[in-house]
Amino acid sequence: MKRIAIDMDEVLANPNLRFLEWYERDYGVKITEAQLYGMGQKFYEYVDNHDLRNYLHIKGFFKDLPLMPDSQEVVKWLAEHYEIFIVTSAMEFKYSMEDKYDWLQKYFPFLPWKNFVFCGRKDMIIADYLIDDHVKNLTGFTGEGILYHAPHNLDNTEFTRVKNWQEIKAFFEKELAKF
Amino acid sequence: MKRIAIDMDEVLANPNLRFLEWYERDYGVKITEAQLYGMGQKFYEYVDNHDLRNYLHIKGFFKDLPLMPDSQEVVKWLAEHYEIFIVTSAMEFKYSMEDKYDWLQKYFPFLPWKNFVFCGRKDMIIADYLIDDHVKNLTGFTGEGILYHAPHNLDNTEFTRVKNWQEIKAFFEKELAKF
Repeated sequence: MKRIAIDMDEVLANPNLRFLEWYERDYGVKITEAQLYGMGQKFYEYVDNHDLRNYLHIKGFFKDLPLMPDSQEVVKWLAEHYEIFIVTSAMEFKYSMEDKYDWLQKYFPFLPWKNFVFCGRKDMIIADYLIDDHVKNLTGFTGEGILYHAPHNLDNTEFTRVKNWQEIKAFFEKELAKF
Repeated sequence: MKRIAIDMDEVLANPNLRFLEWYERDYGVKITEAQLYGMGQKFYEYVDNHDLRNYLHIKGFFKDLPLMPDSQEVVKWLAEHYEIFIVTSAMEFKYSMEDKYDWLQKYFPFLPWKNFVFCGRKDMIIADYLIDDHVKNLTGFTGEGILYHAPHNLDNTEFTRVKNWQEIKAFFEKELAKF
């Protein structure tokens, strides 16, 4: 059975909505997700306030993040055909770990915890595919990288780009049809 | 630069001493580490009380665990010659993660957090060596497994056995001399 490693933030979960929520709460300014995509940047770059990156270090930032649309259903379908690993960069943000763990148990209870990996880089993971929004993670990866469309990666053409989970399903339907 | 993946519990840190400490606190019975080695079992098997395994799920069990002797000095030396990853099975024990992270930052501040991996299995890790006390982790590993001597692995002869960090240093001095 081939193996797919799947990133969490901006692939399964949507931290941008939490950024926008906290930013409006703290600064009284409402920004939309569409505006983020229009700028092609990380949120804290978009608003030109790098201190906002500290939100990621605050306990609770990663708690109950919204799901990316269709991610549950498509991962469930993928798990019937592939071995699924969740591989997420958690080490920079100590307080993200318990929240990420709870989130996975809540929204993806059909995945075994043995296949969760909280790490700081992804070039030491053995898998056939990696779905990730960060080019730097795909670059060092030894399998096939699939780039999840995000405001900060709009100009990359090196990797197969998927814009949503339905496109991921379509990609793997084609992969499965090859055999 | 070759890569060494190093386990935490019963390799860098000593959770048996915490088990013994809490067991004496809760049951009034004093047991020594030497007795554990004499029985060749995990602590909760030794005292025939599998509920004790629940200690691992209690917040604080992994906090400030004692260091295995010489581990800091030898890892520091190894880091001059190898890329060091810390790869620890943390996923079964949600509350271990923040404590393990703090512990690594405290005792191994010279290792980059990017090289910490909290996982549930180790067969998807790319490394040249894995130092671990669990035969099951070494069995699936794709590099060379090095078995750290522990009460529950005394009868294994499949892997190179090291009894302490000085033996690990001696092992890698020989490895380095090969090139």
